[in-house]
Amino acid sequence: MSGSIFGKNISVSTWGESHGKALGCVLDGFPAGLDLNEEDIQKFLDRRKPGTSSATTSRKEDDLVEILSGVFDGKTTGTPISLMVKNTSQKSSDYSEIAKYYRPGHADYGFDQKYGFRDYRGGGRSSGRETIGRVAAGALASKLLGKMGIEVIAYTKAIGSVEIDPKVTDYNARLSTPTAMPDIEADKKAMDLIESARQKNDSLGGVIECRIKGVPAGIGEPVFDKLDARLSQAIMSIGAVKAIEIGDGVKVSTYYGSENNDAFEAVGSKISKKTNHSGGILGGMSDGSEIVLRAYIKPTPSIASTQETINQDGENITINIKGRHDPVVVPRAVVVVESMCAVTLLDLMISNMASRADSIISFYKNH
Amino acid sequence: MSGSIFGKNISVSTWGESHGKALGCVLDGFPAGLDLNEEDIQKFLDRRKPGTSSATTSRKEDDLVEILSGVFDGKTTGTPISLMVKNTSQKSSDYSEIAKYYRPGHADYGFDQKYGFRDYRGGGRSSGRETIGRVAAGALASKLLGKMGIEVIAYTKAIGSVEIDPKVTDYNARLSTPTAMPDIEADKKAMDLIESARQKNDSLGGVIECRIKGVPAGIGEPVFDKLDARLSQAIMSIGAVKAIEIGDGVKVSTYYGSENNDAFEAVGSKISKKTNHSGGILGGMSDGSEIVLRAYIKPTPSIASTQETINQDGENITINIKGRHDPVVVPRAVVVVESMCAVTLLDLMISNMASRADSIISFYKNH
Amino acid sequence: MSGSIFGKNISVSTWGESHGKALGCVLDGFPAGLDLNEEDIQKFLDRRKPGTSSATTSRKEDDLVEILSGVFDGKTTGTPISLMVKNTSQKSSDYSEIAKYYRPGHADYGFDQKYGFRDYRGGGRSSGRETIGRVAAGALASKLLGKMGIEVIAYTKAIGSVEIDPKVTDYNARLSTPTAMPDIEADKKAMDLIESARQKNDSLGGVIECRIKGVPAGIGEPVFDKLDARLSQAIMSIGAVKAIEIGDGVKVSTYYGSENNDAFEAVGSKISKKTNHSGGILGGMSDGSEIVLRAYIKPTPSIASTQETINQDGENITINIKGRHDPVVVPRAVVVVESMCAVTLLDLMISNMASRADSIISFYKNH
Amino acid sequence: MSGSIFGKNISVSTWGESHGKALGCVLDGFPAGLDLNEEDIQKFLDRRKPGTSSATTSRKEDDLVEILSGVFDGKTTGTPISLMVKNTSQKSSDYSEIAKYYRPGHADYGFDQKYGFRDYRGGGRSSGRETIGRVAAGALASKLLGKMGIEVIAYTKAIGSVEIDPKVTDYNARLSTPTAMPDIEADKKAMDLIESARQKNDSLGGVIECRIKGVPAGIGEPVFDKLDARLSQAIMSIGAVKAIEIGDGVKVSTYYGSENNDAFEAVGSKISKKTNHSGGILGGMSDGSEIVLRAYIKPTPSIASTQETINQDGENITINIKGRHDPVVVPRAVVVVESMCAVTLLDLMISNMASRADSIISFYKNH
Repeated sequence: MSGSIFGKNISVSTWGESHGKALGCVLDGFPAGLDLNEEDIQKFLDRRKPGTSSATTSRKEDDLVEILSGVFDGKTTGTPISLMVKNTSQKSSDYSEIAKYYRPGHADYGFDQKYGFRDYRGGGRSSGRETIGRVAAGALASKLLGKMGIEVIAYTKAIGSVEIDPKVTDYNARLSTPTAMPDIEADKKAMDLIESARQKNDSLGGVIECRIKGVPAGIGEPVFDKLDARLSQAIMSIGAVKAIEIGDGVKVSTYYGSENNDAFEAVGSKISKKTNHSGGILGGMSDGSEIVLRAYIKPTPSIASTQETINQDGENITINIKGRHDPVVVPRAVVVVESMCAVTLLDLMISNMASRADSIISFYKNH
Repeated sequence: MSGSIFGKNISVSTWGESHGKALGCVLDGFPAGLDLNEEDIQKFLDRRKPGTSSATTSRKEDDLVEILSGVFDGKTTGTPISLMVKNTSQKSSDYSEIAKYYRPGHADYGFDQKYGFRDYRGGGRSSGRETIGRVAAGALASKLLGKMGIEVIAYTKAIGSVEIDPKVTDYNARLSTPTAMPDIEADKKAMDLIESARQKNDSLGGVIECRIKGVPAGIGEPVFDKLDARLSQAIMSIGAVKAIEIGDGVKVSTYYGSENNDAFEAVGSKISKKTNHSGGILGGMSDGSEIVLRAYIKPTPSIASTQETINQDGENITINIKGRHDPVVVPRAVVVVESMCAVTLLDLMISNMASRADSIISFYKNH
Repeated sequence: MSGSIFGKNISVSTWGESHGKALGCVLDGFPAGLDLNEEDIQKFLDRRKPGTSSATTSRKEDDLVEILSGVFDGKTTGTPISLMVKNTSQKSSDYSEIAKYYRPGHADYGFDQKYGFRDYRGGGRSSGRETIGRVAAGALASKLLGKMGIEVIAYTKAIGSVEIDPKVTDYNARLSTPTAMPDIEADKKAMDLIESARQKNDSLGGVIECRIKGVPAGIGEPVFDKLDARLSQAIMSIGAVKAIEIGDGVKVSTYYGSENNDAFEAVGSKISKKTNHSGGILGGMSDGSEIVLRAYIKPTPSIASTQETINQDGENITINIKGRHDPVVVPRAVVVVESMCAVTLLDLMISNMASRADSIISFYKNH
Repeated sequence: MSGSIFGKNISVSTWGESHGKALGCVLDGFPAGLDLNEEDIQKFLDRRKPGTSSATTSRKEDDLVEILSGVFDGKTTGTPISLMVKNTSQKSSDYSEIAKYYRPGHADYGFDQKYGFRDYRGGGRSSGRETIGRVAAGALASKLLGKMGIEVIAYTKAIGSVEIDPKVTDYNARLSTPTAMPDIEADKKAMDLIESARQKNDSLGGVIECRIKGVPAGIGEPVFDKLDARLSQAIMSIGAVKAIEIGDGVKVSTYYGSENNDAFEAVGSKISKKTNHSGGILGGMSDGSEIVLRAYIKPTPSIASTQETINQDGENITINIKGRHDPVVVPRAVVVVESMCAVTLLDLMISNMASRADSIISFYKNH
């Protein structure tokens, strides 16, 4: 069963391995007439590029995107948009040893059990490079959402024990700090923590928060395709995410109903909520408030310190993983979370256009 | 876009409102030859039946299931299985007032914004009764999984601030305690807490944990249809769930890699892991260990104490919600979580059967 | 893999066997706000009801539809619409013999090979009664299409060698003639032919033509979800259909390009085509002309004359099929073709609403 | 709604325009462990390459395929297989005039109505070059089917009025004749007819027949995903196909039941049918006989003779289409039909693996 396609109205089909010839995605169902050039996508891809600071691997990957189809005269045509990034700096020799054993915390064992063998070079399909296709798709979705006044903003909320100041409301700094934190003080502390982990041959995890502003009420389909359900699949499908919460999330389990319920209020003709414990989603549909969610990311499993594991012959061994690995994947994953949220939201906004018979009738009357 | 169908190989299509004539589901793609009778399903439905203790609403709902198609001579036939539960005790008169305003914490406002109006009787489609179809489907999936030695066990882990003893390993008591906790001491404390909340016209939330034993390694499709991603959609699609975590979940964001990585080990020819921080899922595939996940449930939004909100004319008002509501939905939601996990897992186990060319070739050679 | 669900935006999930408790369908994704009552659906179902003339089986089936969900205050709510028809007059005793052998021209052998056994009563899931769910869904789709000025008209074009006059342009008579032919002369001849076939213990096939008026240009998705491709799946999925053609169909294979190409012409501001060899579809999209297609139906395989076949033990035997069978299924299949066309077209018209970025942006600006 | 993805278990996502940078496809869900190299695919692509005879356009297109992902150490890995063919010889200048008007028999008008504009170079997405992705996918599906003893054989049955001898049973010659006819006599006559049409600035259509040998009984899902229904979508989705028939197809509408029914017979332990009017499909499932279908292809709409049409300003004009066009597309479409049949059949064979509970249980017991 195909597992590399996401979305119902706009389908994103991603492909590519860490050390194959290239990676990319095909977007099928993306609407016609959006002005688009490679720079729109490159800006997004550059946010997941490594080698820009000591918070990431020192591997150099340029990750230049090419648009292969679906754009004509600077506009999307409504036909499939094929995007490709060539692999340039991958050397398979670095990974020959990994072929023989199962790295703790990695997908190696599952791949071998499922498929009988695996492309072991750099993690193959389960490499973080798999997210290139997601981010390319996210760039397009974000651009179209932007035209509707919707802004998707993800940032690093915590790395290990270092959290940003909860009072931060300007998130622009996330685009310039090495940790993607929107808080310069916390960023510095986090960089120190990362450096200390690196020196111990260890790694860190963290938390990514995403806020989506400007979403009208009613987006999301009741029952299985709830907005929060589809966002949860989207976010949990990003490697290394181990938990997802909406609004106050985990904490609501200890609230009383009287604390958790957000009162609706009308100020003039505008309807809003006095609080936003719900994180902008009620009954699986957007409630008109800001959508807020958090993804909890595990520490990078590739660490240089000695670990116990088994090899392919089922023998107990110890290993030391070599190579240039991210001491923490959180900063580079921020744009992946942002992208998956944008793709999911846009897909459900298109579904919502056919919720009412009147909308369909009037679309074709004005046709 | 259809949002009431779940699953790719086995599709569960649920239907029905709280106060319509009936509720049910159609399972399409369920395999032929499984012995099945109404009792198999009724046992599951009875676990979500209210009125059995003061932990639930005092409404009486018998919820007797009828098999309408897809079963012949006591066996599934491979054709769609249609299951129906008639609504018997619903009285619309109780709900006339609700039609006029938007209850805090409920889907009312979203429904009106999306569809232009709503079936306001008892929450309509967003009622907890919507889960009847899910549980009926879960009974079938669980039965088939059982034949493969796989057991899906959900139970209440916490209600409000009351948690079960983490040392509990026998979960059978969950089937007899009113809270669905597998810990009789904690159950009593939780019942006291519920009683106290009820007297304050308030409500509680809690945590449901699910363990799945016996899953072979390699189940789940890399990238978007990861086992944890699909489970997250499944669980988050249950009304009132606000967070989902796998294994150590939220906590892994503060771990070091050396703490979080689970060492593989071989004991004789058997491969296992020394720890299970991963909750049985690595890289989106089962890793052969027990699968562990937790759903965080918000307190029931229907409370009798005074609340601020708006009416359909956009006027600020205060309301007191009448009627017989669950002071906490957690105990009744346990079997829903179990059901959604079973349906999701079975669906991905079928996908996995075609992972290798050799499996397909040998299936048809032996045909 | 589920095979009883049709449609992407509006999903029709049908269920039920000839001799089970009931048959029906669930429509998921049908838009809110369409006025609907059981009479709207019953009118369609009555057109496939047998026993109304000697052209059909003398079995009596009332086929009364019940709306179980998704309609409130006389309007669709946007949530799944569950429709059910109870089986009332089925007697299993008639079919005990059929259990033991494989009827020529029927699905019996395939069912046993696929599933290991089958519900043999009246054909089980492969009975013509399976189409009840399709017709119920078609009634809804047709009603909504009607609000957009689109009319779907199917009728019997031929039974055996008897064809209607090609000059007929008023199709209303199809609703009153026993053959569903819109030509009273041809109808009489066809009835004679049917009577003669019946006396020979034999059966007949025929041709159903469908015309769809008022479809705007551009409906259908290039490549795999072309309008003609999806219509072909829809029509060929009706039991007994063995060929499908669009416009001049089979004949175009012997045309020259200069004969087959339809010239576009502008008359004032209105664009049309001088001819319609294309049957209203070019490049998989509607071209603004009337859509015309034909389904070729095989003779009823259940005949009373002696036939050779094998039994379940693989022995060569001869059989005489008893029971009350339609001497020709064409008249009753007309409304099924009409229904499948309506469902398919509506589904693709919804897809088309998101073809342009501007449409999406303006939908949400006016929201 | 995405229209460029086909298949449920194995999803083929095609992309690319006639004059874009490249064309290709992504196969998601293709099983692991099949030995595969570019030559396997190139052989199929070469069968649709033009310029090899006067039956095709004189344009030169090398159409060399590159495997970009999903293959490692000469074997498929189970992850998405991305295949690309670069466009090399396309010159946009040839097509500048076409931008301004709507060619009769083409998708131009539909594209403009649907998307607001179109990539007019060489037909853009509706070019015959779109089938490159289909054929690449077909090469893989055919290879895997071959390992199960299943052979998919398509060939030209007719071009214009010239038909092959119906007694031909060796189809190998189809790989070497310019018309893809398996009959050398008919091939010569057809080539003469093509030459004569070319001289008249006209074009021809024809018929492609496909035979599939070795398919076990029971493949295809009852109701909407019948084998013939899915094949019909697949074949009708190929540009220029206007009719599809299974077995005796159109002709069965005039048969009596006693003529059309195929008697089952047992010869030793082997079950077969005495005749094959059904074309190997009964009740939507394979019946164990050879599967036979025919696609009816319209004459190439691009012809050099003068035609009437309108321009984008809605003015009536006359045009003469220049450029190098196929006088008949049938010979090059043969491998496209073969490919679509292979992909469809393989997809449904995978679905069928989960038809019985016992198959699932025993797969995991032997795991």
